[in-house]
Amino acid sequence: MADFPTKAEIGVTTGPIRGSKKIHVGPLKVAMREIQLEPSSGEAPVRVYDTSGPYTDSNVLIDINAGLAPLRRDWIMARGDVEAYDGRATKPEDNGQLGPDRSGGVDPFPHVVQRPLRAKPGMNVSQMHYARKGIITPEMEYVAERENLGRARLKEYVRDGESFGAEIPDYVTPEFVRDEVARGRAIIPSNINHPESEPMAIGRNFLVKINANIGNSAVASDVANEVDKMVWSIRWGADTVMDLSTGRNIHDTREWIIRNSPVPIGTVPIYQALEKVGGVAEDLTWEIFRDTLIEQAEQGVDYFTIHAGVRLPYVPLAAKRVTGIVSRGGSIMAKWCLAHHKESFLYEHFDEITEIMKAYDIAYSLGDGLRPGSIADANDEAQFAELYTLGELTHRAWKQDVQVMIEGPGHVPMHKIKANMDKQLEACGEAPFYTLGPLTTDIAPGYDHITSGIGAAMIGWYGTAMLCYVTPKEHLGLPDRDDVKTGVVTYKLAAHAADLAKGHPAAKVRDDALSRARFEFRWRDQFNLSLDPDTAEQYHDQTLPAEGAKSAHFCSMCGPKFCSMKISQEVREFARLQNQESTAFLAASPLPHAGGAGGGPEKAEEGSRRGAEEAETAEQWAEKGMAEMSKVYDETGRELYMGAGDREHD
Amino acid sequence: MADFPTKAEIGVTTGPIRGSKKIHVGPLKVAMREIQLEPSSGEAPVRVYDTSGPYTDSNVLIDINAGLAPLRRDWIMARGDVEAYDGRATKPEDNGQLGPDRSGGVDPFPHVVQRPLRAKPGMNVSQMHYARKGIITPEMEYVAERENLGRARLKEYVRDGESFGAEIPDYVTPEFVRDEVARGRAIIPSNINHPESEPMAIGRNFLVKINANIGNSAVASDVANEVDKMVWSIRWGADTVMDLSTGRNIHDTREWIIRNSPVPIGTVPIYQALEKVGGVAEDLTWEIFRDTLIEQAEQGVDYFTIHAGVRLPYVPLAAKRVTGIVSRGGSIMAKWCLAHHKESFLYEHFDEITEIMKAYDIAYSLGDGLRPGSIADANDEAQFAELYTLGELTHRAWKQDVQVMIEGPGHVPMHKIKANMDKQLEACGEAPFYTLGPLTTDIAPGYDHITSGIGAAMIGWYGTAMLCYVTPKEHLGLPDRDDVKTGVVTYKLAAHAADLAKGHPAAKVRDDALSRARFEFRWRDQFNLSLDPDTAEQYHDQTLPAEGAKSAHFCSMCGPKFCSMKISQEVREFARLQNQESTAFLAASPLPHAGGAGGGPEKAEEGSRRGAEEAETAEQWAEKGMAEMSKVYDETGRELYMGAGDREHD
Repeated sequence: MADFPTKAEIGVTTGPIRGSKKIHVGPLKVAMREIQLEPSSGEAPVRVYDTSGPYTDSNVLIDINAGLAPLRRDWIMARGDVEAYDGRATKPEDNGQLGPDRSGGVDPFPHVVQRPLRAKPGMNVSQMHYARKGIITPEMEYVAERENLGRARLKEYVRDGESFGAEIPDYVTPEFVRDEVARGRAIIPSNINHPESEPMAIGRNFLVKINANIGNSAVASDVANEVDKMVWSIRWGADTVMDLSTGRNIHDTREWIIRNSPVPIGTVPIYQALEKVGGVAEDLTWEIFRDTLIEQAEQGVDYFTIHAGVRLPYVPLAAKRVTGIVSRGGSIMAKWCLAHHKESFLYEHFDEITEIMKAYDIAYSLGDGLRPGSIADANDEAQFAELYTLGELTHRAWKQDVQVMIEGPGHVPMHKIKANMDKQLEACGEAPFYTLGPLTTDIAPGYDHITSGIGAAMIGWYGTAMLCYVTPKEHLGLPDRDDVKTGVVTYKLAAHAADLAKGHPAAKVRDDALSRARFEFRWRDQFNLSLDPDTAEQYHDQTLPAEGAKSAHFCSMCGPKFCSMKISQEVREFARLQNQESTAFLAASPLPHAGGAGGGPEKAEEGSRRGAEEAETAEQWAEKGMAEMSKVYDETGRELYMGAGDREHD
Repeated sequence: MADFPTKAEIGVTTGPIRGSKKIHVGPLKVAMREIQLEPSSGEAPVRVYDTSGPYTDSNVLIDINAGLAPLRRDWIMARGDVEAYDGRATKPEDNGQLGPDRSGGVDPFPHVVQRPLRAKPGMNVSQMHYARKGIITPEMEYVAERENLGRARLKEYVRDGESFGAEIPDYVTPEFVRDEVARGRAIIPSNINHPESEPMAIGRNFLVKINANIGNSAVASDVANEVDKMVWSIRWGADTVMDLSTGRNIHDTREWIIRNSPVPIGTVPIYQALEKVGGVAEDLTWEIFRDTLIEQAEQGVDYFTIHAGVRLPYVPLAAKRVTGIVSRGGSIMAKWCLAHHKESFLYEHFDEITEIMKAYDIAYSLGDGLRPGSIADANDEAQFAELYTLGELTHRAWKQDVQVMIEGPGHVPMHKIKANMDKQLEACGEAPFYTLGPLTTDIAPGYDHITSGIGAAMIGWYGTAMLCYVTPKEHLGLPDRDDVKTGVVTYKLAAHAADLAKGHPAAKVRDDALSRARFEFRWRDQFNLSLDPDTAEQYHDQTLPAEGAKSAHFCSMCGPKFCSMKISQEVREFARLQNQESTAFLAASPLPHAGGAGGGPEKAEEGSRRGAEEAETAEQWAEKGMAEMSKVYDETGRELYMGAGDREHD
């Protein structure tokens, strides 16, 4: 046991995110985060989507050994369609303890549920099944409330975006959620044995979500690290977490993670199945795999990556690639198929797998085992052959009302990204797409959170529902805590950029609040509204550490003499005070309507229209007052504080 | 003098980039970098574009006090159209030394040229002028050789990309360069007083370039830092550097930078002019500004940002914005216009400025003083009104054969980026676009290299010729050395992603070489081919520090038992060795042609076509051999090394 922490050693980060407090909204007490702004600003607090669970709630005492409270337990039981039963007994091989030398390990979670739940015989407990029967579950209501963040301010905005056929509503109703789940365009991963999870939706008409991968491996990491990484990743915004552990103790590690996770947990069951056969792919059997599914279903895994699209005839298609098969699950199945010269047992037994999924409400994440691992291999025959098979399997799963999302690449240059989205929507009947990046070049190991963040933002805009993060260590090593945070924040900003571009009505509220804070030199508000207040403040303080600089009307880029934001403010304020009526200035200075090469500013539709329609009183004053400003300014002695622009911008 | 370094204290980073050596190609000895690969790979060295100048050349002794050798001096003199003259005498205010308390400062550069060059009366020494007269200059020849990197391998590839109307040739000839410069689609910034610079082109039909900003300010930084940052930024790939210094000693700081810079240097002359009038914008005059242009022209600045598009009637348009005017130069000019109630002196005297530019061959970088500083302000009337004026000014500059590029935003959500490119091309007659990002969301201070890297990659793809970097400190503080590197590498990868997506024939060579190295577990080659070999190796070594791990056929993500790359390799190698003829396997396993929702893999055009047309012998063997693999594999006792995929990918 020496290598592993005792219970007391497992510590996680708790406490509110700087400048925020946890709130609970509505009858279901939907968890959100509220960012308080300086009272002088006169601005309302900004509510933001919150994935961090009770860990950021000052009123909750966290005890990792007890796990989280079972939020959904009563909802699940109230439906009357589940039964507790004597679960599968844990076997030594579940933790990779096959030989005498491998008997050490982590302490088991102290409060393992001995009698898990499953659907009563003949019942189907999937959210899709309820949705198709017209039932609005508490999970759906929770999602609706949760997704409506910021939409109360919708009337401030003209909706503006290009959503490529998505149908994002002005307000999310529980009925809308039900309908999206019923038609398969959204999923709510929610294993009945993971009642600790706060319901969330993955779908093109909801906020774009992100996933963080954690997991130990044969080379590094341990259970304390993994629980801590889970809590750390949701603190910064991970909507789901995949436990990709391999090697020893994966059963117990997973138990610790799930019992303490307020977000859905995904796994790739073939990893554990492979451990059970000593790492020899061709020794895998349907029976061992099936047993692993049950094991993980009883623990509460919310979605399974199943590489059932790696069919025997597709394997040769990958042989001519530059980087072959880069999916671990894909290569395991390819090897099995070749060794046995048989069709994949995942494909052959797909409907039986679906039977299991519906008894626990586990969602499929249909794995893209043949995704491209390099720019050279993007959008090739192997990749799309598999994608269309995933489409076939989607419809087979939907016949049993089982929720499905589809995994996507990988490494794809920018000009080939949209085709991935378009083909996925077509092949898979609009089932949510869940992509890894994609990475838009191969040449930047160490920076692949960025090469992939570019692709992720773009494919999120085009319609991908969840983005699987990539950390700076991708291709090089196992991510540590800092890497996890960097990956999560990078993907959070990519997802948000996608929401903005789609025209999501809840997205722009936060950008505008932060920009106003920036313009008004409310430094603390700017930090607190950002995705990572700690880093923002730390960077600011590296140049201007003094407390006074937090309220200074300048920053280190421009220095005290020099600030463009300042002059704009002064002009506006000045105009408000003067409120002079002359419009002679504007009338005398018409906009030119032709540049050197035709066209003209009349083409600036969005801006012009907004300007014309939405000018409010203060702004109208500003425009008029500015006309008189020059004159009065000279009269009053040029006392305006001098400002200039952001030095990094010029 | 106490605050500033003596000459001996100015140190910069020298020596080759890891795994690379400097080479010089052709009669003009065009500098390039060659990455050596492991001899066992049988692969040719990979040549990459190199901006780092003599600093990475083992054969050159660097002496900051002497400056770089004047590479272009003879070319310039040979044209017979320049004359040396007694330059403008340096004044105390050039270094911001107006009062007795400001007399301290940096040592002047020891070898200031006392007699700078300018065009003989009536002559025009701009590259555009030569180009339009049909003259191919050595600068154009140098550019052609430099841009052709990797194109010798073009026959390996089917060109593939979406270039949105760009016309990237298979090979770059000097005549092509001349033609692009003549029609204004590319510029070669090359002040005749900066003969140390290695010619480079900025244009839509060349590799996408990046700029790094450096510069001291009233609050932080000093000259030693700035020279070091310049050398550091070009080491990692900055194609040009802007010196945005303000405050004291900016004349001398600039001299140190230019004399030691192998890349073009840009400035914003209004910054220095403002210093000369004590920071009071309304005290600026055309005479002071003009004098500053001459001062900097004689020092050798290669391009000037001139905010001549901030016209008096546009200023009120910015008053209704969330963040007003965020360009420092823009706000200075706005304030001047308002204070005097006069049209901008930059606009009024534009043709006189152009006269100066052509006498030294300084390129315009027409500043976007009214660019949006927040998502809310993107693509508004103020921004596009200015853009069309920049178009008008472009054509006025071109009448005098002066080179022009156009600066662009700023903060723009993804769905509004393309309109910026389209309008710029239309308004400015395809003059090169030079954008700051754009940032695709406002909510991630501390990560704005990434929010802007997304926008930069996209707009680079759409046609932007040069991307101005943004560092993690944007909006928060002055970038330090680490920030400069992060910014440069981020933008380098964004520019490369854009080149790939445009289908640039020289781009993919490096991705493919790196991917092959990855697939073949040539770890050192993978590091050396990356944009930042030091960081790649460091990240790898954090998990697997042992020297043996550099040649291990696994990584820390998968561990020794588990590697998907490995299995693909084994399959391929096995097939090659067997070379069995049976195709029964493939014939018996036809690809399904329909997924669940119509369509099928026949739509995977690119992949299929490539596969069908380009399969080479080894690959055909692989495909055929794989058919027999299963059988033989069983016979030979399942001895293949077990592999599986990248754990971060599943």
